[in-house]
Amino acid sequence: MKRNFKMTIRYDGSRFQGWESQPGVEMTIEGKIESVLERMLEEENNVNIKGAPLGKVEDESEDAIINKIPVKVIASGRTDAGVHAIGQVANVHLDTEMKAADIQSYMNRYLPDDIAIEDLKDASERFHARYNALGKTYRYTCYYGDSKPVFDRKYVTVLDEQPDIKKMREGAEYLIGTHDFKSFCANPRMKKSTVRCVDSIDIEKEGPYIRMYFHGNGFLQNMVRILSGTLLEVGFGRITPQKVGDILEAKDRKLAGPTAKAQGLCLIKVDY
Amino acid sequence: MKRNFKMTIRYDGSRFQGWESQPGVEMTIEGKIESVLERMLEEENNVNIKGAPLGKVEDESEDAIINKIPVKVIASGRTDAGVHAIGQVANVHLDTEMKAADIQSYMNRYLPDDIAIEDLKDASERFHARYNALGKTYRYTCYYGDSKPVFDRKYVTVLDEQPDIKKMREGAEYLIGTHDFKSFCANPRMKKSTVRCVDSIDIEKEGPYIRMYFHGNGFLQNMVRILSGTLLEVGFGRITPQKVGDILEAKDRKLAGPTAKAQGLCLIKVDY
Repeated sequence: MKRNFKMTIRYDGSRFQGWESQPGVEMTIEGKIESVLERMLEEENNVNIKGAPLGKVEDESEDAIINKIPVKVIASGRTDAGVHAIGQVANVHLDTEMKAADIQSYMNRYLPDDIAIEDLKDASERFHARYNALGKTYRYTCYYGDSKPVFDRKYVTVLDEQPDIKKMREGAEYLIGTHDFKSFCANPRMKKSTVRCVDSIDIEKEGPYIRMYFHGNGFLQNMVRILSGTLLEVGFGRITPQKVGDILEAKDRKLAGPTAKAQGLCLIKVDY
Repeated sequence: MKRNFKMTIRYDGSRFQGWESQPGVEMTIEGKIESVLERMLEEENNVNIKGAPLGKVEDESEDAIINKIPVKVIASGRTDAGVHAIGQVANVHLDTEMKAADIQSYMNRYLPDDIAIEDLKDASERFHARYNALGKTYRYTCYYGDSKPVFDRKYVTVLDEQPDIKKMREGAEYLIGTHDFKSFCANPRMKKSTVRCVDSIDIEKEGPYIRMYFHGNGFLQNMVRILSGTLLEVGFGRITPQKVGDILEAKDRKLAGPTAKAQGLCLIKVDY
């Protein structure tokens, strides 16, 4: 019988072409995780379909297809190329007898150093990491200082100008609440609703680091990066805080600021 | 007239073959810094010898040699391939009219992202980063935990076993003071004195991180890494704390523990 597992994943997205595995795209976080789980199931069942010499498989018969162990990991949502996660959540249905703790250590052993399974446990059969997600927290990290962020250079966006945090906070106020965020969506042909609820945007400064925390019930494609890019423009004085309300109302991506770089973004937590 | 500058340098050593520039070795921190300074002086003097078409230089005449702007950066000491620094100190004599602050920002602009000049100022003509160094602090960082150090994986050494910090501290006591550290020197044919003074070894644990801080008047080749490797063996229970004293007395590298990996080591501070 298949069991459903919930896992929390931490990854450095620098090397990857994003979360989602796609045909022809090799370096995805989902792809790495699915390969390791496939290998694990094959080892458990002692059926190494993929490793079998090609000569033995006469054709793509129905049997061979049935023998393949399909693993599909469902995340709370995709992350773009270069985006990191501390608390990505995913679920996966696996036909295994293994203990959750053993699955977790197997995965951590065979996954590359830049992907870690922080937690893995049995979940109810109906748990779905995407459909059941109630909220998400993202963090966008910028760096403005005299020196350079040598050791965390892949996890921050270096700014050339000092942004005014007070103005950024003022601008952020206009975004709080349930709004149509079409102006902050990278997909101009989005067919589904672009209405989302952003509960809070907290902006803090600690030494040379400026961190923006976004919490909401869901985010559109590139939404956090466009919100971050827009709030930075407010901080630089190129957009007034009041203008943020106008941009929101206009429902026009062209009026918002640029999409901030992927490397500053990190998915912190998913609520269920 | 040549001026002497003192600079403090931070670097991620992961990509580099160590500090010291050597013929045929391209990726060194010293080499990167010297190239940038050479370029800076050439720009200042508007004499781009290196950039000149080869056809124009008829032979290696004395003039051409004189025209080359030799830059030699003197560090407090070399660091090995893969070793990091927060507070490496170096000095360099430069024939320039530029302000120290402008030199620093030029360097930070043209150096790669993994090398930063934290500070640069005019120093007395006689200041020598190696000869004048009175003491150094190194930090060796290990990680032992359920998960994996995804974001700082290049700055820690992951342990397979939990070391006993109390035993490590006990073993470290035997190393404090002025001793012949021949047992902890990678160079068996070291002609100069292998006597050094280690003032303090502080070992702290913070969550999954175990950090060893070494302060002394100087360290032999690989000394901090061999000390770290030996203290870890003590922590794992494979060497008794008392044995550390015997190893020190034996003056025999073969008795000490293994050389701990370079990636966990960081030069924190140089005293003058």
